Amino acid sequence: MPRPSQRLLSAGIITDAALRLVDRAGDFTMPGLAESLRVRPSSLYNHVAGRAEIIELMRSRVMSEIVVVEPRDLWSETVAALAREYRRCYAKHPRLIPLLTAYTVQTGVAFGMYNALAQAFSDGGFEPGEVLHAITALDSFVLGSALDQAAPTVVWADVPEANDAMRAALATSVPNPARADAAFEFGLRALVAGLVAQAPVER
Amino acid sequence: MPRPSQRLLSAGIITDAALRLVDRAGDFTMPGLAESLRVRPSSLYNHVAGRAEIIELMRSRVMSEIVVVEPRDLWSETVAALAREYRRCYAKHPRLIPLLTAYTVQTGVAFGMYNALAQAFSDGGFEPGEVLHAITALDSFVLGSALDQAAPTVVWADVPEANDAMRAALATSVPNPARADAAFEFGLRALVAGLVAQAPVER
Repeated sequence: MPRPSQRLLSAGIITDAALRLVDRAGDFTMPGLAESLRVRPSSLYNHVAGRAEIIELMRSRVMSEIVVVEPRDLWSETVAALAREYRRCYAKHPRLIPLLTAYTVQTGVAFGMYNALAQAFSDGGFEPGEVLHAITALDSFVLGSALDQAAPTVVWADVPEANDAMRAALATSVPNPARADAAFEFGLRALVAGLVAQAPVER
Repeated sequence: MPRPSQRLLSAGIITDAALRLVDRAGDFTMPGLAESLRVRPSSLYNHVAGRAEIIELMRSRVMSEIVVVEPRDLWSETVAALAREYRRCYAKHPRLIPLLTAYTVQTGVAFGMYNALAQAFSDGGFEPGEVLHAITALDSFVLGSALDQAAPTVVWADVPEANDAMRAALATSVPNPARADAAFEFGLRALVAGLVAQAPVER
């Protein structure tokens, strides 16, 4: 039997361990990762080039779970369906989000979704520069919504500083996932409707 | 002269130090925070109740920088102006975002902006439940956009997997802050237009 310090490593095992650390503590270091796997830090480098590659492997892991839907009749329905899939996968790892947004998207698997979004917005008649903005705006909304899905049951405390409008709004809140789901669908409807209104091709 | 380990502490000094740790490493621990201030962990507890209070103090620090604009003629313009202020302040501390979204908003100072948003959406004729959804959706878009503002110059690498639509979009990209600013304004225009279209009161 190999001793724990000599266990077989792989890029997949390293990715799993890094994801566990990020889920728990928001980040990872190479020494901390080696410790969690009970190997020497130098052993990690037999399988990965370093931190940036591990982050890209985590992105690949999460984005490979996204089901890239077939194009719908309306480009806007394709966009909405992709956004739902995207949020579903990222909501499992909210603390990974700021690590991923801090690094260049390199992994080919991520482009399954981005390609589908780019095609949908192109079908909507947007110019390439607008396609990039539209993808980015949807990305921002989805990642923020994935963070919101991981929010505590009580998002806002009932404090004396709340005005009447805010207090009335808070009184309607329900526990997650229902609250976050409803807010996401409400916002997605508004964002997509706004994009459709700006698009040269509505259908 | 006091020795470093006996330096005067305050909640403000602790908040500053925690924010530096979060900016650098995405999180903080009480022992790590004490070490960065060269005090014993027990000394921290003379000033703060613990981790949750420090997180709330960081939220208060960031949100106190938001200039809560006076209501504009159109409620939608008020919403857009608040969103810009909100993003400006959070973009300075992108790694703080997932910590803040994981804790209940308790600090009164945060309600300056939330109250103004609640009032604006109420002026738009939204029901209280819709007001909550609209605030949450805007919040998600702004926080995601703040993360995007901290993204690297090259957000997406030019990989063989990119399709023609994605490659054409990427070819238009310019370095930040111009790219992120343009995408935010494009998305904000769409989101607000979509909200206006759903609102009972347009003006």
